[in-house]
Parts: sequence; structure tokens; C-alpha cells
Amino acid sequence: MGKRSPAKLRADGRKADALRPVKIIRGFTKCATGSVLIKTGNTHVLCTACVEEAVPAWRKDSGLGWVTAEYDMLPSSTGQRRARDRSGKVDGRTQEIQRLIGRSLRAVVDMAKLGPRTIWVDCDVLQADGGTRTASITGAYVALRDAVNRLRKDRLLSADPITDTVAATSVGMVDGRLMLDLAYEEDRDAEVDFNVVQTGRGRFIEVQGTAEGRAFTRQQMTAMLTLAERGIRQLRQAQTRALRSRSGT
Amino acid sequence: MGKRSPAKLRADGRKADALRPVKIIRGFTKCATGSVLIKTGNTHVLCTACVEEAVPAWRKDSGLGWVTAEYDMLPSSTGQRRARDRSGKVDGRTQEIQRLIGRSLRAVVDMAKLGPRTIWVDCDVLQADGGTRTASITGAYVALRDAVNRLRKDRLLSADPITDTVAATSVGMVDGRLMLDLAYEEDRDAEVDFNVVQTGRGRFIEVQGTAEGRAFTRQQMTAMLTLAERGIRQLRQAQTRALRSRSGT
Amino acid sequence: MGKRSPAKLRADGRKADALRPVKIIRGFTKCATGSVLIKTGNTHVLCTACVEEAVPAWRKDSGLGWVTAEYDMLPSSTGQRRARDRSGKVDGRTQEIQRLIGRSLRAVVDMAKLGPRTIWVDCDVLQADGGTRTASITGAYVALRDAVNRLRKDRLLSADPITDTVAATSVGMVDGRLMLDLAYEEDRDAEVDFNVVQTGRGRFIEVQGTAEGRAFTRQQMTAMLTLAERGIRQLRQAQTRALRSRSGT
Amino acid sequence: MGKRSPAKLRADGRKADALRPVKIIRGFTKCATGSVLIKTGNTHVLCTACVEEAVPAWRKDSGLGWVTAEYDMLPSSTGQRRARDRSGKVDGRTQEIQRLIGRSLRAVVDMAKLGPRTIWVDCDVLQADGGTRTASITGAYVALRDAVNRLRKDRLLSADPITDTVAATSVGMVDGRLMLDLAYEEDRDAEVDFNVVQTGRGRFIEVQGTAEGRAFTRQQMTAMLTLAERGIRQLRQAQTRALRSRSGT
Amino acid sequence: MGKRSPAKLRADGRKADALRPVKIIRGFTKCATGSVLIKTGNTHVLCTACVEEAVPAWRKDSGLGWVTAEYDMLPSSTGQRRARDRSGKVDGRTQEIQRLIGRSLRAVVDMAKLGPRTIWVDCDVLQADGGTRTASITGAYVALRDAVNRLRKDRLLSADPITDTVAATSVGMVDGRLMLDLAYEEDRDAEVDFNVVQTGRGRFIEVQGTAEGRAFTRQQMTAMLTLAERGIRQLRQAQTRALRSRSGT
Amino acid sequence: MGKRSPAKLRADGRKADALRPVKIIRGFTKCATGSVLIKTGNTHVLCTACVEEAVPAWRKDSGLGWVTAEYDMLPSSTGQRRARDRSGKVDGRTQEIQRLIGRSLRAVVDMAKLGPRTIWVDCDVLQADGGTRTASITGAYVALRDAVNRLRKDRLLSADPITDTVAATSVGMVDGRLMLDLAYEEDRDAEVDFNVVQTGRGRFIEVQGTAEGRAFTRQQMTAMLTLAERGIRQLRQAQTRALRSRSGT
Repeated sequence: MGKRSPAKLRADGRKADALRPVKIIRGFTKCATGSVLIKTGNTHVLCTACVEEAVPAWRKDSGLGWVTAEYDMLPSSTGQRRARDRSGKVDGRTQEIQRLIGRSLRAVVDMAKLGPRTIWVDCDVLQADGGTRTASITGAYVALRDAVNRLRKDRLLSADPITDTVAATSVGMVDGRLMLDLAYEEDRDAEVDFNVVQTGRGRFIEVQGTAEGRAFTRQQMTAMLTLAERGIRQLRQAQTRALRSRSGT
Repeated sequence: MGKRSPAKLRADGRKADALRPVKIIRGFTKCATGSVLIKTGNTHVLCTACVEEAVPAWRKDSGLGWVTAEYDMLPSSTGQRRARDRSGKVDGRTQEIQRLIGRSLRAVVDMAKLGPRTIWVDCDVLQADGGTRTASITGAYVALRDAVNRLRKDRLLSADPITDTVAATSVGMVDGRLMLDLAYEEDRDAEVDFNVVQTGRGRFIEVQGTAEGRAFTRQQMTAMLTLAERGIRQLRQAQTRALRSRSGT
Repeated sequence: MGKRSPAKLRADGRKADALRPVKIIRGFTKCATGSVLIKTGNTHVLCTACVEEAVPAWRKDSGLGWVTAEYDMLPSSTGQRRARDRSGKVDGRTQEIQRLIGRSLRAVVDMAKLGPRTIWVDCDVLQADGGTRTASITGAYVALRDAVNRLRKDRLLSADPITDTVAATSVGMVDGRLMLDLAYEEDRDAEVDFNVVQTGRGRFIEVQGTAEGRAFTRQQMTAMLTLAERGIRQLRQAQTRALRSRSGT
Repeated sequence: MGKRSPAKLRADGRKADALRPVKIIRGFTKCATGSVLIKTGNTHVLCTACVEEAVPAWRKDSGLGWVTAEYDMLPSSTGQRRARDRSGKVDGRTQEIQRLIGRSLRAVVDMAKLGPRTIWVDCDVLQADGGTRTASITGAYVALRDAVNRLRKDRLLSADPITDTVAATSVGMVDGRLMLDLAYEEDRDAEVDFNVVQTGRGRFIEVQGTAEGRAFTRQQMTAMLTLAERGIRQLRQAQTRALRSRSGT
Repeated sequence: MGKRSPAKLRADGRKADALRPVKIIRGFTKCATGSVLIKTGNTHVLCTACVEEAVPAWRKDSGLGWVTAEYDMLPSSTGQRRARDRSGKVDGRTQEIQRLIGRSLRAVVDMAKLGPRTIWVDCDVLQADGGTRTASITGAYVALRDAVNRLRKDRLLSADPITDTVAATSVGMVDGRLMLDLAYEEDRDAEVDFNVVQTGRGRFIEVQGTAEGRAFTRQQMTAMLTLAERGIRQLRQAQTRALRSRSGT
Repeated sequence: MGKRSPAKLRADGRKADALRPVKIIRGFTKCATGSVLIKTGNTHVLCTACVEEAVPAWRKDSGLGWVTAEYDMLPSSTGQRRARDRSGKVDGRTQEIQRLIGRSLRAVVDMAKLGPRTIWVDCDVLQADGGTRTASITGAYVALRDAVNRLRKDRLLSADPITDTVAATSVGMVDGRLMLDLAYEEDRDAEVDFNVVQTGRGRFIEVQGTAEGRAFTRQQMTAMLTLAERGIRQLRQAQTRALRSRSGT
């Protein structure tokens, strides 16, 4: 990489260790209890949280609540139109992502305090430019927080069931270089793609590193995790700012 | 109805013969060739138009183009969360609506001038409060116009294939009274629901009147059509304004 | 159209304003409570009505009844064999038609008087030559009438739940000319296709006008409705004749 | 069984060894190349044969033809309405029957003489009272014969590809007694159900004996086959009569 | 066939009237109540029997039990990889086979003595070389016997619900010659394929003879049955030997 | 945990840092090019590799090969019978696992050297006791190696496309303690579950750590990875031993 200055390295002018600009707009649609539009660069995801006063059948009579997520992309969200999933088969990638979002949120919710209700979190990608799963988690947390605040305001919850915050980002190795928060073209060319989901207290909920082209060493893995943690700290600040404002920034 | 003043008649304070406020935002997302967010009151629909340089198999070798539409509602778009259509079966209402949108657009496109390409129009409802199918048509026309303008700018089209404008609205009979542009609760209570799709030159593409509770007389039908035509004239003006501005109003 | 005599205008020798010959055969199969074979020219539809002593789940405990319709075409009903719908996806046209049939019948049934039972109406096209949806409605009314008569005979109903008769036909503009009750080839070439469903008392249940090629004016619409009403009067007479005879004509 | 006279044994007054009355109506619908309504007692099946000038992909370039069958029952064909098969899953019984019909017809067709075309045979049950699969085979043969005759008339075939006739019936053991051509209630109560498909030259295409309640001995099997052969001879005569008349009896 | 010695007739060196070597291994997997690997030559089927303490909905409150079977082939079981059945449609052959297995087992079970429980028998083909359906039945009987023995040991059954043994084999006509227990290539070339399911007491549960190429005479049928009975006697001995040993042979 | 000796810690008597006994049987079935039964304790997976001389459509004309995997569990593989996946929807877990297996194998194959052919790897679980995905990867490598050896023997490959070995295992935190190679009950109770896929040269292909109950610290993650690497070294030795023997150990 010799003389190339880091500032010129990325297509959008970012430094290798910089996040894309983050914007979190609360109350984007009227209907859902929590409705958040999160923008990380050109990736825009609408994250909503709806409350249902019931739990899945297998959870009946446990007194515990449930949090579940669904993820989808609008056909027009990608450069080339993406056909709607109307075959009755949810593709593997979609399932993997929505399971990850659900798992990440459940890790910061005390189901006994939530009580016998379900929070449905929907993450619908309006515009995709890489990192839709991590943006979904970061935005979904804010929607979940808003939905729970509404339940508390309506005196349906006596204690706060949310035990920690959660945010996520990706890091990768592109042409042998570490990069934070990969945009679509960077992700496509990455040799290694690491998604990290971390709580506000610094514990990991999910660490998933996948070698696409070349397998990675343990040393590289350590460096990637350190960079991811740094990005997640900044995302946490953006979440906090949005939740303090009347309708987010 | 005696002494009730007409201005107080409707939940949102509208007169019986008034449209809801219309806002048409162009360029809402980056990726689609045409991308329009139309808001009619609390009904918000994202209408996008993507161009594919191919036609369906049954149209091969005809030299003609094709325009087709798909319609869907986000799970969080309604008051109570609506389950995603993942059964592999598109429900009857959805199919009826997307066929109507496609037919309405095709009526103002000269397929020979469009040439052997397909324009996919996607209407995704972000927030629903009645009239999603007519808002979809009105917004989709603007997205189509933008997509065709782009094709012309890129010199892919020698002549303009769009032959007329198109817009749509609904009228109904609620408690025996005519009303324009029904919101969700009005539509739910209506005895008769009339959807009208009309071109800029005043010709009808679709007139669909359905009695839910009480069948209607010919005289009532005449009055409903007249009211619908008046609303459509105003929607046409909103389309024109949006297309003149840099990114809509 | 100048000198062409109207009598020669149509392939089957009909005048522009004439229906095809109608034949309504009651008791065509043994099993269904009402079983009617309706023939309008070369369009033959078997319309049956079966009674189930239960209502759909969403109607439970309302005390109200339900009437629903299903429509299908035998593979051999069309000139070229039509593949059976075995994909698990009912196509859009089929859904639209069966929703229309159901809605038309429900408009003349008092659900409280019917009580907590469902009448399933099946319209299976044995031979298709255009106008299968309107023939289905006209025939289905007779099957429904027979099924209700049987319920009354068996003293399962204290009052007649049927409040009016219903029949349907189509009109169209072919080469700029109005025509009643379009056969398949006429329908295929029509610029405008109008389906009209009307009750015995002359009120409309459904008016659906669709421009396929050229949009239509308001004046043309008025003329089409007038012609449709005339055809429906004749169909109503055929229904009455069939119901008076022992097994229809 | 002692003194009970055989003539009184069966609900419809038939002797144990008698077929139900058979009626074969040719040209029942206009569109299919061969269109036959076969009635055996209260079992009515519409059997049609359509010719497609193509063969399935796996048969391409072999020069050989193909004959295939589909079977279905109208919802109203049974005493209690039978839900339409719209789940996308054809049930096991339906598949078994349509495979049997196809196999039976293929056994009397010389595929080289048929040449690279497919004959689609559809057997749609309008009214069911037992024995629908065997009635389908007997009727389908006549429809196939008519379709092939039409191809020969149109000079599309130089030699007759049909090598033999085929017909089918059932026999069973009910309460320990042999019975020919079981009606629905007899079939339901039978301990053994035997379907036999035989050619005009007396060779078997399919012999399928199934014990429902009690397994059967070899001696009983011999007696059942003898009785089936006798019924099939009479069905063959009915086929011949129908094919000689202008439109069957 | 003149001078060819019968011993040389078959690819694997077998005489025309010889079975392939049979091996029945009990307790092949740990989890199922009965778990049997049956090998007949190169056809290997894993037959397991699981007990569920419930019956299908249509059998509720009858006090009777149920036995049902499912059949599948691993993708790698055939010479050329066979795609997994993931379309949601079980193909006709699979359905026909699993219905046959279930029916064969039910014929030797007294459902009243079994009581309100279901025995699920799964037959999964690990390696296929013809005769998978008959090997499945022969192996499934042993798995069923083991599962019932376990229920009796656990004192869940007071009387033995199994009333007889059951085994199955195939015979065929290949090049005009009778052959017992057809391997895949023999079956593919056979003119007639006969599957016979018989109980230990010599009664038939299923006799299914299918002519693929040439229909068969009654005399040929008699000879085929006699040969099948001989093979089944030997299979019954193999079942008995396996059930006497600690873990089969 | 104080005085409890580590040897007594686990249900099967293993130490916390011990793998279950591994057995790799090659040539388990005849048909697949590579056919391996891997047993890790009570988890038994049949891994087969079939070669198809074609590539998926999206890979046409690239000259590159493809390796893909499918995973399934037999219904009888688990303690309680697991319904077959016949709904047409592959569940999320299955999809995630088969994507992981495919990705792991592709990471050690040079697609240019493999040439335009596909290797299908099927992993079918005969008996499940935790760790089926990691056992599948370890066994699938051996089946892949055998299939490639066969291609080389048949002189279809000029150079060896396999660039490294691959094996996988899991580690977890159960009651706050690290454990290697979790059995089913341990996995069910684990707070953290870590799957690690590593090549023979010590590089990681996949590192996936999931907190089920409690999120984990970075220090814990480091310890889990170290333990996993130790287990994978032993699995690699088992692979080598199996490939050296004539039919595995």
C-alpha cells in the first residue's frame, strides 16, 4: 500500500477506520409503536417495533415474553431490481439475518419483566449499500427502546425489561487492509467479513467472521475485533443522541 | 344530517368534497431510476420504477416493451401489524391491486416507442390510511415519468413513449352521503366504494364501483363519477408541480 | 360501419345488442344441494351450492351466515388445453373472479336470516367462450336459490334470507361499436370491457369498466350501461323460467 | 347369507355379479379433440383428450410420442363438499389414480406410430359414487380413440397407433361375498378391493388387489379375477357401441 | 434362451428363482424405538419405528391406534445423485410407496389393542438397487415388532397388537422369463413387475402387477404369484432369525 | 465448581477439554464417489460427495468449478421423531448449516483447477447428539478428498484442486466453564456456543460465537478459541488416519 494516503483509500473518501455518517430518525411512520429510519451512509433501513399482547404457542403459560425480528429488502433497494420473495421460500441469507437480529435484541431483554407479550421488530431495507444487517440491529434497538418506553408510559410494564443497549457493525479485510463499516463494493471485494454485535457494557452477543477468499490468522482476528469495538462505541453515542432528542437525528 | 355543517363532517375536518393534502417527493431513494414517495394524508406509498433491458418471454421478438407493477404493504404500515406474505400465495386483494396499477400505466404508454424493455413499477406502502391503490397509481405515474425521462436523457429512447398522464382517486357513499378520497375508517364504513382512474385528457381507464352493503342506483353513480373527476383534476396539478420542481413537493 | 347490416356484424350472426341463447338446467348433478348447468352460447358453467353448518372462524359467535364462491376452469374447457392450477398459487384472474361472484351473491342475502351456516358456491367452467364470470353469477344465483329452497323445505330456515335476484352480463366496445354479451373472440379484440352485476330491483352491485386499448369517454360509458341493463332484464327472465320449471330449460 | 336372494343383495337392486348401467356420451364438450361423458350408475366422469404437437423434455429427439393423464374431482362431486386441491400438493390418491390411467392408455398405444406429439387425457369427476378410476379408464379410451381418429382424418398420422382396446372395473369382497363394480358405500365396506385393467385381447395391464380389513387367499383372488373379466367384456361392448354411434349412448 | 444355463442368467450370478442375500441389522441407530438396517443385495434401507402417544385428529376419541409410514431416498442412494424433495411436493412414486408400506403394516396390527397411540415408521433408503419398497416392508415389520416389544416391556400394552408377520418381494418377466427379487437393471428392463405383500399365514395384503411393456396373461400371473410366495417364505425366515438374535444378522 | 474433579464433570465421563471418540468410515455406501460415515460420540453423519459434469447457470463459461452442500436430518435421528421437511420450506437452521458446510469446503478448493464441474456434498444425519454441523464439515472433507482422488485416478483432473485440509469443532461455556465438543444436552444448556472451522495450516475459515444466555467477554473468547484449535488438531489426525487406511477407522 506504500505511499497511498489512508484518507484516499476508500471510494467515499473515508479513512479505513471511519464509520459512515449515521442518522437515526425516530417516529418515521405513525403506526408502529417504535418506528425508526436509520441511515448509515447510503444504507437506509426502516426499523419498527409492534407489540402484540400474546406469545407464541410454545411459550404459552410461561409468563415470559418474546422478541422476534423479520428482515426484508424492498425490490428497489438495490442497484438492480431484486425480485420479491413470493415463492413461499425465504432465502437462506434473509433467514440468517433475521435470526441474528432477533437473537441480538433478546440478549438485552429480560423476558420475565417483559411479561406475556411479543415485540415484533421489522427491518425493511429501503436502500442498500452494504451493512444492512448491522444497521438493522443498531436501528432496531432504538425502535425497541421506544416501544418499551410506550408500554411503560401506558403503565403496562412495572419494571424496565431492557437490561443493556446493543449495536453492531462490520469490519473486513480488503486487499489485505483492515476496514471499518464496509460499503457494498468493499464488502463484495473483502477477503474476510466480520460482523460484531456488542452490548453497551462491552460484552459480545455475536462474533461472526467469515473468510470469503483467504482464511485469516488469529492475529488478524484480534485486530479486526479491536476496530469493530471502536466503531460500536460511536454507534452507541448516536443511539443515545437520537433517544434524547424529540424525534432523533 | 340536518344542521351539521359539512366542514365538520369528517374525522380529519375535511369537507365531503375535499381531497386529503397531497405531497409528492421525487428522488426519495437513490437506486431506482424513478423513486417517488407520495403522501395523501396519512397514506404514504413509495413508488419506484426500474428499467430492465428485456421483455417477458411471451413478448419476445415483438419489438414491443412492457410495463408491470407490484404492490405490497410493509408489516408495520397498518395500525395492527400485518403478517408478511411469505406463504408463496399472493392474496387476492394484492393481486387485484397490482394488476390495476399495471393496467393503468400501460394505458398511457406506447409500447412500440418504449421498445424491447420492461419498466417494473413497485408500490410499497409505508403507512396505510385508505386509498393505497389510488395513491399508488398517482405516484407511480410520476416515477414512470422520471424513469422515461432518464431513458431519454441517456438517449435510449428517440421518441417519448408516454402518451398521456394518469391519476386516480376514490369516492364513496358513507351513511348515504357522497365523499371524496376516503380515509381508512370512512372506507370501512362505506356502502359503496368507487375507484376511478382517468387520464389527463379526461378519458377513463378504469371505473370500478362496488356495493359493500347496499347496491346503488344509476343516479348515485353519476354523482360519484362527477366528484371523482374533480378530485383527479387536483391530483393532476400536484403531479405537474412535482415534476416541475427539482425534487417534488 | 356504413352499409354493413347489423345482423351480419357478429361471427355467430347475432345483432350487436343481442344476448347469446341462454339455457339453465337445474339438478344437473345429484350431490350438491343446488346444481345448475348454465349455457350462454358456447360458454357452459356448472354452478353448485353446498351448505355447511358452520361459519369461518372470523365469523364465529356472530349468529350471521356466510356465502363464498370458488371458480375454476377445466383444463379441456378452452380451445388449447389449459394446465391445471396445481402450483398452490391461484392466479390473479381466478381470484378476482371468485371474489366478484361471492360479493355479488352476498349482496342479495340477509346473513342474519341465513343463520350460522356457510353456502359454498362452486362455478366450474366446462366449456369457455367468453363471459364465464357473468354466466357464473347468473347461474350461481339459481343454484343458491335452489339450496335455500331446500333449507326452507327441511325447515332449517324460518324466513327467506334471499332479498333480491341477481344477474350479470358484459358489454364492450369492439372496433368502436357497442356490443352486448361478448364471446371470446369479441372480448379479445375489445377496446373496452364492461362487466355489470345488477339486482332484480335495478340497483348495481358491481360496475367494472376496463379500457384495454383505448380509454373511454363518459358518454360511451353511459351507453354501455344502458345496453347492459337491457341484457340483464332478459337474463332475469331466463332465471325465473328455469326456477318455475321442474328442472330448468 | 343363506336364504337372502342375490337379487336383493345390493342397495341399488343389482345382482352381485352385475355392472351398473353404463352410458358413454361422445362430443360432450366442443373444445377437446375427444370429449366423453361416461356414466356408470351415479358415477359421472368427463374424459377429454387434447393433442399437443410436442413431447416432454426427457423425450425430445426420440421420435416417440407420449400419452399422459390427469385426474381430479369437482368440489361438488361428492356428498359432502370436497375442498379444492389448491395447496400445491396433489394428494397421494389423486397421483396414484392419474398414474394408473396414463399407464393403462400407454399400454395400448404404439408411441413410434403416434410420433412426436403428446395426448393429454383429463378425467374430471362431475359426480362420484365409487369406481371413478375404472370409469375414467373406460371413458378415456373412447376419448383417446376419438382424438386419434381426428388426427388420422386430418392426415397427421399415417398408421393407427392404437394397438388394442382397454377397459377397467373393480371387484370386491363385501361381508365375505364377491361383488362386481362396487358403488361408493360398497367400496367403503369392502374387505378387499380389486381393480383390474384389461385389454380387448384379454391381457392384463394392471391387477391391483388391496386388503383393507382382512387379507385374502389365493382362491379368493382367482374368483375375483374371473368376475372382473366378465364385467370388462361388457364394458368393451359399451365402448364399441358408443364409437359406432354418431355421439355415443 | 435355448442353451443358456439358468445359473448364468443374471448379472450378479443368481438363479432366476433366487433372492438376493438378506441381512437384517437391529438396533442400527440408538434413538428410534425400533431401528433396523435391512440389506437385500445392494439395496440398503434404514427402517425405524417411533411411538407417539397421540393419534391423528380424525381418529380422536375412537380409542384406536394408528400406524403410518414415510419413505424417502437419500440423494446419494442412487448411481446418479437424486435431488432432494424440497419443492413441497412429494412425488407420486414416493406417495404410492409410503401408502403401500403403511397399509401393509396396518393389516397385521389390531388397532384396538394398540390403543390411542401412533407408530411412525420411516423407511430411508441409504443405497438403492431395485426392490426398495419390498425391502422397506420386510424391514419395517422387524422395526415395528421391536417397537411393540419395547412398549410391552414398558408395560404400556397389556396384549400384543401384532396379529401376524408380513414380508414382501417382487417378481417380474424379463425378456419373457420369470425372475424373483429384481435388481435395479432387471426391473428397468422388465415387461411386467409384480409386487406381492403376504402375511405369515399366507394371505395376501397387496398384489400389484403392472405391465410396463407388454400386458400379461392369466397363466403368467399364476406363475409369478407362485414364485413370489416362495421368496416371501425365505424372507420370513430371515425376519425370525433377526428377531431371535440380540442385534440381528 | 470447587472440589469436583474435572474428569467427573460431563455426563459421558469426558474431561472438559476432551473430544468425543471419533470414527471415520470410508466407502460406507457404494454409489457416491466419496461416501463417509463419521461418528463423533453418538452423532453419526453420512457425508457423500457426488460429481456432476456441469456448473450452475450463473457460473457458466467461467471455466471454474463449484462445490455445494446440502444438510438434512433423518426423522428418526433425534430422541423424539422430527417431522420431515416436506412443506417446501427449508428451515432457517438447515439453510444456515448447509451454507456453512459449502463455504468451508470451498475455502480449500481451487475452482480453476477443479474445472467446470460441481461437487455435491450431502450430509445426512443418521443419529444426532449435538455438533452435527461440525461433524458434517470434518466428515465432508474426507468425502471430498475421496471424490477428488477418484477424479484424479480417472485422469479427469491434471492438478489437485484441494489446497488445504479443513475440520471443525465447537466449544462452549456451560455454567461458566469452558467445554470442548458439546454433546446435545451440554449445547442446550450452554450460555455461549462457538463453532470454529479451521484449515490444516491453522487459518480460520469461520469463527461464529453466539451468546444464548449471557454475552461473553473478549477474554473468554480468547480462551474458547484456544481450546477449539486444540480439538481441531486431533480431528485433523483422525482424518489423516482414515484417508491412509483402506476404508477408514
